[in-house]
Amino acid sequence: MATKAFADELAAAVSARESQIVLGLDPDPRKLWPVGEPAAGGVAERTAAAVLAHCRAVIEAVGEACVAVKPQLACFERLGAPGIAALREVIAAGREAGLLVIADAKRGDVPVSAAAYAQALAGSTPGPFGEVQGLGVDAFTANPLLGRDALEPLIATGAGVFVLVRTSNPGAADVQDLELAGGGALWERLARLVAELGAPRECGLSDVGAVIGATEPEHLERARELMPHAVFLLPGIGAQGGRVDDLAPVFAPGRAAGLVSASRAIVDAGGAGPAHAEAQRLRELAWRLV
Amino acid sequence: MATKAFADELAAAVSARESQIVLGLDPDPRKLWPVGEPAAGGVAERTAAAVLAHCRAVIEAVGEACVAVKPQLACFERLGAPGIAALREVIAAGREAGLLVIADAKRGDVPVSAAAYAQALAGSTPGPFGEVQGLGVDAFTANPLLGRDALEPLIATGAGVFVLVRTSNPGAADVQDLELAGGGALWERLARLVAELGAPRECGLSDVGAVIGATEPEHLERARELMPHAVFLLPGIGAQGGRVDDLAPVFAPGRAAGLVSASRAIVDAGGAGPAHAEAQRLRELAWRLV
Repeated sequence: MATKAFADELAAAVSARESQIVLGLDPDPRKLWPVGEPAAGGVAERTAAAVLAHCRAVIEAVGEACVAVKPQLACFERLGAPGIAALREVIAAGREAGLLVIADAKRGDVPVSAAAYAQALAGSTPGPFGEVQGLGVDAFTANPLLGRDALEPLIATGAGVFVLVRTSNPGAADVQDLELAGGGALWERLARLVAELGAPRECGLSDVGAVIGATEPEHLERARELMPHAVFLLPGIGAQGGRVDDLAPVFAPGRAAGLVSASRAIVDAGGAGPAHAEAQRLRELAWRLV
Repeated sequence: MATKAFADELAAAVSARESQIVLGLDPDPRKLWPVGEPAAGGVAERTAAAVLAHCRAVIEAVGEACVAVKPQLACFERLGAPGIAALREVIAAGREAGLLVIADAKRGDVPVSAAAYAQALAGSTPGPFGEVQGLGVDAFTANPLLGRDALEPLIATGAGVFVLVRTSNPGAADVQDLELAGGGALWERLARLVAELGAPRECGLSDVGAVIGATEPEHLERARELMPHAVFLLPGIGAQGGRVDDLAPVFAPGRAAGLVSASRAIVDAGGAGPAHAEAQRLRELAWRLV
């Protein structure tokens, strides 16, 4: 557990690394960077080893241009127990490269189960043989559909929690854009919940952030108004059509107030050199906005 | 993958086993049934082995009175890779006892990541060394906040998908009960989405079901009206205050139209005998409602 608040740690890292870029790792076993000889073991073990080698290579090539790495948990879970073991190694590789680690988990459950997810992601689990350590990430994404009492155990970890407010997929409109009888859209209500759950740390930002798709730039100004202290995690740049230039309103409270997340746009750029060049391009575009 | 539709398989199982009870497995390492000597290995390995032994003992004691087992994924994930290996063994133990397996996963993500969760839960992942098999559960729970396109890859697995509609925790009211400008509450809108996404199978029920807390019986009649073909997965009996007698409206389309989920109420009843007695009591109460 970090002794510094997540928001302060993030602000320091953004400043030191001069980057607001989050390297998304969503490894598809069919599209891995060329790796060495396959490891021994069954299909799951060998696939997980190849995924781990890929992620290490990507972090090595691109990490310098980024402030954080964001593994998508689904991509590791689909490889079973060897996938989870690989995820731990990816997290360690991110840390060794000086990056913060954000687990893209999108968890949400009733309070007792949310507390179990909190232990899994950023805590530990007491038992008869001692404490079982969780993944130990610095932050993770969470789903607010189950309301405040379901988010509180996640926030209580002290890790950063990026709450889904307006996601980047087309279907987001089906539910998150529904107009409420009291006025405003559902996502605006979720934004208010984020604002209520977080308080500004020393740096002026809160440990409770928001996931806002960069694909809907018309929402960004309103989102900032509703969540003046939240760090926005902004997926959807590149492959999904979002543009960095549209993100300026996000950064009103400072450079660490927005994290530009890109995965396929970087990783599928065509090898180590082009991947770094793309991350560097995004980094410069975003840095220029404040 | 089952050749029969999930709904038909469920209806046949409910009829054959004369039970609508789902045994929730949310193992807390501090409250396990007495087990034998600890396994070798580190803290995580030993804890996961104890959790597995506990779950096997519970299934052996109580499975006869149930139709399905529902492991809470958070409780296994918090034990790391050994926890996931244990989860696979728990799933196998459930199957050996003739039970259907419902993963309490509450997953929801953008389409590309939803497809990865689909592979993890009820599919397989192609890669350079062959297919990595997922957990292979019969059904799982899912979160609809990201809309239709995020649910579709989950439904496409052919597994049963229980979509969160109105959860059993107090905080559910914060978001799910919000009144919409177009009329009705958000949860009613989610119910309509469930109805749109599923179609009745031979038995008259759909593979797309709904999670509805048994703690709010006033919603059940309306939920049934909105989702005439959905199987309702009903948590909240016992520990959370719900009563089986209030569930009658759920079963209008037939006995398999409602699954009464209980975990702590059964597992914490005080050992194998009392646990079976409590499951049997719930089974008889529910069976009597049609």
